Amino acid sequence: MAHKYPSRGSDLPLRDARHPDDLHTGTNRDAFWTPANLQPPVDLSHHFSYATKNRVGSSVKEFYKYFKIPGIHNVAGGMPHVSYFPYDTLEASVALPNRFSSEVDPPIDIVTGRDGSAPTSPTSARLTIPKESDTLNVTKRIDLATALQYGTAEGYPPLHSFIRQFVRENLHPNVPYAGGPEVILTCGSTDGFSKTIEAMTNVWQEGKDWIREREGILCEEFTYMNAIQTAQPRGLNIQSIAMDADGMKATGKGGLADVLDNWDFSRGKRPHLLYTITIGQNPTGAVIPLQRRKEIYAICQKYDIIIVEDDPYWNLQYPSANELSARYRGAQSDPYLPVYDYNAHGRSSGYPFLDSLVPSYLAVDTEGRVIRLDTFSKTIAPGCRLGWLTAQPKVIERITRITETTTQQPSGFVQSMVAGLIMGDQGDDSTQSKSTSGPSWKVDGWVRWLEGLRAEYERRMQSMCTVLEENKFVVIHETSGIQMSSTSCGNRRRETIDEWEIVDKVQMYEFDIPRGGMFVWVKTRLETHPLWSQVPVETLAAALWKHLTKEPFLCLVAPGQMFAATKDNVQDACRYMRLCFTPVEVEEVAKASEGFVKGCASFWQIKDVNEIQDDDDNEDIASSMIF
Amino acid sequence: MAHKYPSRGSDLPLRDARHPDDLHTGTNRDAFWTPANLQPPVDLSHHFSYATKNRVGSSVKEFYKYFKIPGIHNVAGGMPHVSYFPYDTLEASVALPNRFSSEVDPPIDIVTGRDGSAPTSPTSARLTIPKESDTLNVTKRIDLATALQYGTAEGYPPLHSFIRQFVRENLHPNVPYAGGPEVILTCGSTDGFSKTIEAMTNVWQEGKDWIREREGILCEEFTYMNAIQTAQPRGLNIQSIAMDADGMKATGKGGLADVLDNWDFSRGKRPHLLYTITIGQNPTGAVIPLQRRKEIYAICQKYDIIIVEDDPYWNLQYPSANELSARYRGAQSDPYLPVYDYNAHGRSSGYPFLDSLVPSYLAVDTEGRVIRLDTFSKTIAPGCRLGWLTAQPKVIERITRITETTTQQPSGFVQSMVAGLIMGDQGDDSTQSKSTSGPSWKVDGWVRWLEGLRAEYERRMQSMCTVLEENKFVVIHETSGIQMSSTSCGNRRRETIDEWEIVDKVQMYEFDIPRGGMFVWVKTRLETHPLWSQVPVETLAAALWKHLTKEPFLCLVAPGQMFAATKDNVQDACRYMRLCFTPVEVEEVAKASEGFVKGCASFWQIKDVNEIQDDDDNEDIASSMIF
Repeated sequence: MAHKYPSRGSDLPLRDARHPDDLHTGTNRDAFWTPANLQPPVDLSHHFSYATKNRVGSSVKEFYKYFKIPGIHNVAGGMPHVSYFPYDTLEASVALPNRFSSEVDPPIDIVTGRDGSAPTSPTSARLTIPKESDTLNVTKRIDLATALQYGTAEGYPPLHSFIRQFVRENLHPNVPYAGGPEVILTCGSTDGFSKTIEAMTNVWQEGKDWIREREGILCEEFTYMNAIQTAQPRGLNIQSIAMDADGMKATGKGGLADVLDNWDFSRGKRPHLLYTITIGQNPTGAVIPLQRRKEIYAICQKYDIIIVEDDPYWNLQYPSANELSARYRGAQSDPYLPVYDYNAHGRSSGYPFLDSLVPSYLAVDTEGRVIRLDTFSKTIAPGCRLGWLTAQPKVIERITRITETTTQQPSGFVQSMVAGLIMGDQGDDSTQSKSTSGPSWKVDGWVRWLEGLRAEYERRMQSMCTVLEENKFVVIHETSGIQMSSTSCGNRRRETIDEWEIVDKVQMYEFDIPRGGMFVWVKTRLETHPLWSQVPVETLAAALWKHLTKEPFLCLVAPGQMFAATKDNVQDACRYMRLCFTPVEVEEVAKASEGFVKGCASFWQIKDVNEIQDDDDNEDIASSMIF
Repeated sequence: MAHKYPSRGSDLPLRDARHPDDLHTGTNRDAFWTPANLQPPVDLSHHFSYATKNRVGSSVKEFYKYFKIPGIHNVAGGMPHVSYFPYDTLEASVALPNRFSSEVDPPIDIVTGRDGSAPTSPTSARLTIPKESDTLNVTKRIDLATALQYGTAEGYPPLHSFIRQFVRENLHPNVPYAGGPEVILTCGSTDGFSKTIEAMTNVWQEGKDWIREREGILCEEFTYMNAIQTAQPRGLNIQSIAMDADGMKATGKGGLADVLDNWDFSRGKRPHLLYTITIGQNPTGAVIPLQRRKEIYAICQKYDIIIVEDDPYWNLQYPSANELSARYRGAQSDPYLPVYDYNAHGRSSGYPFLDSLVPSYLAVDTEGRVIRLDTFSKTIAPGCRLGWLTAQPKVIERITRITETTTQQPSGFVQSMVAGLIMGDQGDDSTQSKSTSGPSWKVDGWVRWLEGLRAEYERRMQSMCTVLEENKFVVIHETSGIQMSSTSCGNRRRETIDEWEIVDKVQMYEFDIPRGGMFVWVKTRLETHPLWSQVPVETLAAALWKHLTKEPFLCLVAPGQMFAATKDNVQDACRYMRLCFTPVEVEEVAKASEGFVKGCASFWQIKDVNEIQDDDDNEDIASSMIF
């Protein structure tokens, strides 16, 4: 198999037991999903909400055959004519897939030539979407006459077709149920999650409905609050699950099995939904290894739970996290760091980079109980409001019905521009002037682009983590008159003692090197602060947060409370801060990190409780940080 | 007031009692909404659904002041960096507002020069959205760094700002409550309606909830089925209201007052929502006059009903409908045709074209109980999936909360391209290379474009209606052996009788000249068909529908059943067909119409019942036409 773009992972062996040679020829495309040993997905219809069961499909399809009568004057549909669209073309200057190096070292951006040298090959191209393409095949035709007209709820046919094939052949080539998964395009993962919640939950009204009718949803103890805010207004029980460095715990205290085995039915039904961010978890950065996935999946089978997998950062997995951790902390410093699940697939994706990644829950989804949310927000741009949802066909069918009366379809502007970028117009005669012209990345280019982004973000992660790691200790000077409590100072190593002064070296915070995603989840060790015993932890945390924003530190971080799944998690969460290494200029990552560590070091020198309590709005911050 | 583009309506007098001279200077922009005689909108919160009441606003706003600290390193937000977006520009070749003449006569498209002459002035321009604009004002800055990043639920700031001003100053300058309306951008009207239903209704489960809890929605007896399909799965009562040529009836049998005064509570609550398409109603083409609006509004006040006004065709109002009707049918031929409500506004819109239109329900909305849905689908393109919702501020606030956890915002691709088209970049220094360059239609150009579209569609309407009007009678020859039943032939005028043959001239269908929109709603007079007494009406209607699709007629129309609001309306609806004069080439409108009339004439010649009943799937069509 020839790849247009070199891949960093290309020297990895493929552990490929049943890799069909004709994977990409299309002749045996669906052969994988029809072996005798695969079972069809289980029936999940008992989980559909009342309104979702009630939806009826449009019978307009009965009339499609009439649309195709040669020469028919179709005055049935209520659409405007394409000649009245004020756009004659859509065009763009776009990147080529090689814009960013796929190598983390040397840390130089080849397009901007930040080392002073010129780029070695073109990294830009022109994209033009014509008003009307001559291509007749609807899965290959990309033009404004189709993209800007009313469309199908599954998504713009060329883009839907591309995504479906990419999902089934490259991204998740081993979904273990007969027929394999289907996809529908969404207006981003928030839209996909909203439709999933609409499909799978009934609103429960306190004071009206029986407590035994109350449905629930499980999630990580620290999680993406927008998801919680989607579920909470419907009266769902939000139940958090404890985490460790591998993400959500399957077993042990507060883990998934513990919560479900000991479910308190006085709170409502045992939850039938599990919301999880499994790769570069927001905010913790955890990546759930394959073995853990299998354990969690088995528990979900036992309790008939649907797994909603939200993975916006799936391509941002960082092999160097282990190396970095080993360099600073020694090989055994973090017992949780797993061996990567490289090549855990059965059938190869066709790309060493994709094969090197921890696979989705879909890879263990023998029963079809996984609904996966994907988005272009982190791989192209958040403003796309474009993504897709992958699940067993009968779930996709219901989501399609919901889509028909809500969003109808993602905007044709973004669908055509993304299709044009990745696919180009694939007409038989590529020289036709009326066809889409552009870079036409295709799957090779798309995978190469994703790998380039991974390298860029990995470099940023290293930059931030290096600064944080090398500055996590601080020396504090205390007058001898202050009596330190040894019980709350377990982390201190007393360096010197003299008659007038006690000098301590203390650790201000701790963190795991993130194995994926965009975040470093820093746990402050406020118990090492001189004022620990005099100030409530929430106030001390808020004071630190505000101190960091001041001159000369100027570092604004996300307070941990923003990510507490429930009120029970807030006390724990206020110890944490989330630092994101993606939103600022690449050169600014280290500066922001230095602002953070210097701000911490300065904060740890504060010995006068009035300096904290005089700050009038720390209390306000502490309370308003609970989102 | 100078207008860049000439307006057909510019010779109309402005009946403008309180037109502030500074309307467009911005100095006294909101003065209208603060006079002492305007009351604030009423509290509608008792209508909010349980989940909508439950939504909490994000407290992230508490932190906005920290975002603005000079030099702050903001590593709090979880967004990717703009340098990783693969689009360096978005560009387009776009129309200028004068592309289409605003005159209906002569019926020639000035851009295509269909009369053979060249266009007299440029009708195209280039639009370029840069990666990063130098403009700092967020309501004027249009670039990819902002449009393709995470945004605000209200909509892209420049476009939201433009739409809000257009709505408040031009489109609805006379909303009679203090403070005036607010707007939020939507992903089109279907999205807007879906969010309205989510905000204003609770799901009712048959067999679980009390019948007294069942909510309902009122709508026209023939209506847009997608709206019904949004409400129906939630278990809402769908209650249709009778119509006449002025649209929904306020009084009389089956009218709004009749239905509400005599509400049958054994079906559930009296409905608190009214869904209505008031201009160019789909499918009937009716335009509800201002006087009728006042009557309906008063009834809605009495029963505390929220009006959901869906008006995708508001700019497509046809002054020539009256003339056409008078030419063919005489001035008194249609007693329902109203005097147009031109200039019914108090304050002028600033544009004669806008002043000439029948105003929205917002113009009589003293209590703030109107939620209006607008869309760019018919004024730019359906594939935009872009529109806006107008209502009192507290309704907009709740819809904003819903938007945050569903669509988040419309796609930045379409928001920036539409903003760039209509507004351009309005930076202080328009020569800056980094600013958006483009045609910058502004309000003048936007109104001129809308007027050009109106003229185009009006010409198409005239073309179709002329063919239909001039061919609605047919001569049928019957052998004398057939005994006609005189009771079912009341519409016939017997022309000649001889020994062997009876020749009848019968009317095959009737219709009102549409005063707005995209449709001609044709009522077939199947009772004049020779087989009327031998075949059920549904079968005869289905046979006609199919006959029209055959060679040489080749005319595909939308069967009336598609628009029956409830099952009770199906029997009536099957007599109707909806013909749309917009989806085909302009030259094809007359051909499609000729296909229709010739197909009807041919169908009326069928005298052998076997010709209809042998057609194996007419029964299937008749049943599947019920959507």
